[in-house]
Order: sequence, then C-alpha cells, then structure tokens
Amino acid sequence: MSEHVQHVIRAFDEELNRLRTHVLEMGGLVESQIQAATDAYHTGEIKVVADIVAADKKVNDFEQMIDDECVQVIAKRQPAAFDLRLIMGVSKIVTNLERAGDEAKKIAKGARRLHERGQFMAPGDAIDVRHVASMAVTMLRQALDAFARMDTAAAVEVIRSDDDVDVGFKAIIRQLVTFMMEDPRTISGAMDVIWIARSVERIGDHATNIAEQVIYIAEGRDIRHPPKEKKA
Amino acid sequence: MSEHVQHVIRAFDEELNRLRTHVLEMGGLVESQIQAATDAYHTGEIKVVADIVAADKKVNDFEQMIDDECVQVIAKRQPAAFDLRLIMGVSKIVTNLERAGDEAKKIAKGARRLHERGQFMAPGDAIDVRHVASMAVTMLRQALDAFARMDTAAAVEVIRSDDDVDVGFKAIIRQLVTFMMEDPRTISGAMDVIWIARSVERIGDHATNIAEQVIYIAEGRDIRHPPKEKKA
Repeated sequence: MSEHVQHVIRAFDEELNRLRTHVLEMGGLVESQIQAATDAYHTGEIKVVADIVAADKKVNDFEQMIDDECVQVIAKRQPAAFDLRLIMGVSKIVTNLERAGDEAKKIAKGARRLHERGQFMAPGDAIDVRHVASMAVTMLRQALDAFARMDTAAAVEVIRSDDDVDVGFKAIIRQLVTFMMEDPRTISGAMDVIWIARSVERIGDHATNIAEQVIYIAEGRDIRHPPKEKKA
Repeated sequence: MSEHVQHVIRAFDEELNRLRTHVLEMGGLVESQIQAATDAYHTGEIKVVADIVAADKKVNDFEQMIDDECVQVIAKRQPAAFDLRLIMGVSKIVTNLERAGDEAKKIAKGARRLHERGQFMAPGDAIDVRHVASMAVTMLRQALDAFARMDTAAAVEVIRSDDDVDVGFKAIIRQLVTFMMEDPRTISGAMDVIWIARSVERIGDHATNIAEQVIYIAEGRDIRHPPKEKKA
C-alpha cells in the first residue's frame, strides 16, 4: 500500500472515530438532561429547569454539527457498505437523540408548571415517574453502548425492554385516571403529569429507534418494522 | 461529453427522479391514512380501522425501500453538494412520513376504542378534531408540494402554520379538561380523545420537519432550530 493511500485510510478512520465520539458526547448530554428533568419533577427544585432548557440548544448544535460531518465525510470519502451505513445510521441516531433531548426539555418545563402551581396529584405526593424514567434512561444508555461497541445482541435487548417502559407508562396513566375520577380538582395537574409520562415513554421509543439503527449499521438488514411496530 | 458520460448522468437523473416519485407516493398514502382515521373518529364507522392499520405496513415498506435506494444511489453515484443533500434529506423525510403514518394508525385505533365503548365526550357528540386535523393534513400536503417543487418559500409557510395547529391542539385540550371537570364519568373517553388530538398535533410537527428538510436540501443551510424550536 502506498504511503498516500495509507494516509487517506488513516484520515478516514479518524473522521469516522470523531463521528462516533461526537454521537456519544451528544448522547451523554441528553442522558443528563433527562435525569435532571426527572429530578426536577420529583424534588420540585425548578431552578435547574432553565439550565435544562439552555442545554437543549447545545443538543441542537450537536445534531447540526454531526449531520454536517456526515455529509462531508460521504462527499469526501465516497464510502461503501459498512461505512456508508454507519454514516447514514449516525444521521438518524442524532435525530433521535435530539428528539429525546426535546422530551427532556418538555419534562423540565412540565415539572416547573406543576410545581409553580403548587399542585400535586396524590395528597401531598407526586405520581412516581422515577421508575419508568430510569428504565428509559437505561435503555438510552444501553442503546448508545450498543452503538459504541456495535453490539447487536445488546441492541436487541434494548428493543425488548421497550415493552416494560410501555407497561410502566400505561400504569401511570391508569393511576392518574383514578385520581382524576376521585377528585376532579386534580385534573389540571394530572394533565401536566400525563405529558411528563408521555415524554418518558417517547424517550424509550427513541432509544428503540437508536438500537434498530445499530443493528442496521452492523448487519445491513433493516429490522425496523417486524416483529413489533413500536416507534416514536 | 462522451456517450458513456451522458448515459451515466441520465441514469443518475432517473434514479433521483424515482426517489422523488417514491417519496410523493408514500406521502400520498400517509395523507389518505390520516384522512381516513380522522373520518373514522367522527363518523364512528370503525370498519375502516383495519384497513388503515393494514396500510401502515405499506408505509413501512416504503420507508425501507426508499432508504435502501438512498444508500444504493450514494454508493453507486458518489453524488456531491445538492444531490447528496437531496438523498440525505429524503432519508429524513421518509422517517417523518413513516411516523406520520404511525400517528394515523394511532388515531384510527383510538377512534375504534372510543366508538366500541359507545362513549362520547359531550352529550352525544364528539369533540371536533376535524378542523385541526385538516390543518395538519394541509401542512403535510404543502410540505410534500414544497419538496416536489423545491420551493423554499412554500416550506417556510408550512413551518409558520405549525403554530395554528398547536393553538388548535391546546384549545381541544382545554375543552376536554372542562368536560372532565364537569362530569368525571367522561374521563376515560376524554383520555382517548387526548391521544387522538396529540397524534394530530404530531402530524403537524412531522410536516414541519419535512419542510425544514426541503429548505436544507434546496439551500444547504440548516434552519432546523432557530427561530423556533417546535419539533416532533
């Protein structure tokens, strides 16, 4: 192999590595946003909401930057097979990360609305969304780990666990309906909690989409639709 | 220009045209799904729900096919600048169309659930989601038209009209909260209508995302985040 060719290959590898690193950095930021938003809901410490909303700007910048990188790498390197799938997949993964970040922002704003009104669902106590939120965050982390290691078995696990998040979401909605029926004065507050729970459920969907992209990148087969059709 | 080069350019143009045509076919299918789902909600004729759910399979197949075409065209033609943006943009547009189709499926299933229970919100009458649904469908159609003509001014209009859909969505939610407070027996049914309205609102978001991609393809600048941050 000529020195020139070796140089080109090395430069290309570095670009792909940078792409991967940026995805993981973006993912870490989104994870911490979700965690902070859920915490704000539970603790009522809503001063952090402004920080979470501000961090969303950074997530959006990440998405644009990584998408630009994808286009540039394709134009410059004309990659084939795995590398091309990787880049196309990255472009879809960052969209999902960006949307998950949006959901974190919505959770944060919902928490603020709820706590500013000083209105809770159950007497003096918020509906616990921590459990399902921590499942969704775990899914997201595992999807990003699967991406980092191109581990399709781990990606399949993520897709499977989306059912648990859906079950948890439905349980919260049932709980809220019961509260609302028992005391109609809780309805407005319950609506805020409904949107928070919905956002959590959608984060699980985004993690699922990311896991599906990992399998697509690694194996080239598109498993997005069968066997189940959960989608954000 | 050699005959060979002319032939390659013609073949490439045909591939890009086929890509465009497939996006518009997929879009037309999704539009008709949304329309049928909203009609089912209003008329209570829920026999069509099975057809809408079945059509979603076709939408999913479209997404996979078009994504495959994108990868193949990039690998084969190594396009630059506009063509590469077109292909990357198409790949994101079909994701949004597919999600809009999912929302149509959710609306259809919600309509079936609601009508099978025989339970309405207002005495004997459903909450009117037709108005906001028709705004969302119009947005989607205009976004696809903007794509077909690469008309950025039309795309900007689509993005602007998303505010109207959001206002309509919030009005429906307020109406539902009032019903629930007045008569807690309507709460379960109201929840179904809430998810239907939410799906309609998200279709508007998907149309907005498509319009943003049109501007990205046509002008190469990424306007996804400023000035407003509405996103599905």
